[in-house]
Amino acid sequence: MAVVSPDASPDFRHHVRVYWEDTDAGGVVFYANYLKFFERARTEWLRALGVGQQQLRDETGAIFVVGETRVRYLRPARLDDALEITVILQQRGKASMDLRQQALRDGELLAEGEIRIGCVDAASFRPRRMPATLLERLPE
Amino acid sequence: MAVVSPDASPDFRHHVRVYWEDTDAGGVVFYANYLKFFERARTEWLRALGVGQQQLRDETGAIFVVGETRVRYLRPARLDDALEITVILQQRGKASMDLRQQALRDGELLAEGEIRIGCVDAASFRPRRMPATLLERLPE
Amino acid sequence: MAVVSPDASPDFRHHVRVYWEDTDAGGVVFYANYLKFFERARTEWLRALGVGQQQLRDETGAIFVVGETRVRYLRPARLDDALEITVILQQRGKASMDLRQQALRDGELLAEGEIRIGCVDAASFRPRRMPATLLERLPE
Amino acid sequence: MAVVSPDASPDFRHHVRVYWEDTDAGGVVFYANYLKFFERARTEWLRALGVGQQQLRDETGAIFVVGETRVRYLRPARLDDALEITVILQQRGKASMDLRQQALRDGELLAEGEIRIGCVDAASFRPRRMPATLLERLPE
Repeated sequence: MAVVSPDASPDFRHHVRVYWEDTDAGGVVFYANYLKFFERARTEWLRALGVGQQQLRDETGAIFVVGETRVRYLRPARLDDALEITVILQQRGKASMDLRQQALRDGELLAEGEIRIGCVDAASFRPRRMPATLLERLPE
Repeated sequence: MAVVSPDASPDFRHHVRVYWEDTDAGGVVFYANYLKFFERARTEWLRALGVGQQQLRDETGAIFVVGETRVRYLRPARLDDALEITVILQQRGKASMDLRQQALRDGELLAEGEIRIGCVDAASFRPRRMPATLLERLPE
Repeated sequence: MAVVSPDASPDFRHHVRVYWEDTDAGGVVFYANYLKFFERARTEWLRALGVGQQQLRDETGAIFVVGETRVRYLRPARLDDALEITVILQQRGKASMDLRQQALRDGELLAEGEIRIGCVDAASFRPRRMPATLLERLPE
Repeated sequence: MAVVSPDASPDFRHHVRVYWEDTDAGGVVFYANYLKFFERARTEWLRALGVGQQQLRDETGAIFVVGETRVRYLRPARLDDALEITVILQQRGKASMDLRQQALRDGELLAEGEIRIGCVDAASFRPRRMPATLLERLPE
């Protein structure tokens, strides 16, 4: 993560609102909650691609796990703020993918992160190939 | 809370999606999180009435606190479920109001609750009258 | 829940500390988090009775679900506060039990609640008798 | 973060228990919650050094904010697991510090991270020097 600026053409944009549950006694969004915002956006990105995670698990036994997260917090968000969360697929392997995500408010960058997602078997938590139905829908 | 059934004509309906963050190792929505869903719906209900809570605090020094919650959990919700959260204003006083809220999935009642909200001064946490701008917008 | 005062002889006492994660932008503990504090205390109460919930599930297929919660919030707790959470078993049936719980700070009552716990089969979520190993350890 | 192994001599060790609230529908601890575990350990580390954050804020107007988090998730933790969370102060500046933290279960490394903490003025959120009472207590 070098110099930070809003990504020009994300693969997906998702909108979240800041509620009381998201804030802490500093009066701002609790930093760990950006991971929740990022995940909601990833989930809706997958859903927009036609992939529901519960359905994927029921049909293939595969679930996603988060292998690594790196988040940089730049400016605080506050109660009632309307945030835009973006998703960019940076790299895709057979069993994992790297995503770049940002949180913006009126075009101003508040936080950004890189998230590594792995595909595992839900029962054993062992790494496995992502199901074909998912792979064929991911952007190149 | 007597016999439970979906409320016919709620004052407001808000839609939430179940994400990983909402679930627990039982495979279902963690019960405490219905309080979050209920609050998101109350917040959007107030916003639809023209009342933003951060703005209200900035302008009047008033914030809402939850005085009592009663929730009955009937059926579990799961990852990816689309829920409808309803709000009914049951009773309004000068410094507090009682709300009835339900969580439904495809018309099926999953949880319902009664929430008492009080208005306090943000600095002292002492009860105070709800600001006029709020009172005049609440349904009779 | 009638007049509120600290319970004299709870069945169990558990100590929790208030961290940033527990607070909200009001500068106090987010009300929904008392349900978490209460649950931690119930879990440690069961553990002190010799019942681990993961072990119970592995051995009998039984898990606990929360059927109803009623909580009254009296005074706010703040960052760094040391709280005492109490548990009283009020009533026990074959498949459920009712607990009374309080949160105190230096003997001052901050919140109190009544929690109904049910025993269900982890796979079907159907009510079932509590396992004998649990029943025989619960106080009369 | 290169090759991962348990740190030999951390500056501080804190114990946390995994409760229902910490888990998700994958049956394991929700990854974002390691940030909470790490923060509890940092808070207790500071408290052991004689620094309470609420007191620090009341007396100096300073609060800590998290500037960057990097976490690698290696093995899942489950309900009822007893975890040890460690803290190592890696670097200290005048207005920020870098910490290395790990989560272990019976000596096995589950997750590890690097956390950058900054000191800001609670009102303006502008960076400021850490209070002298804190600086003089931090290990060299």
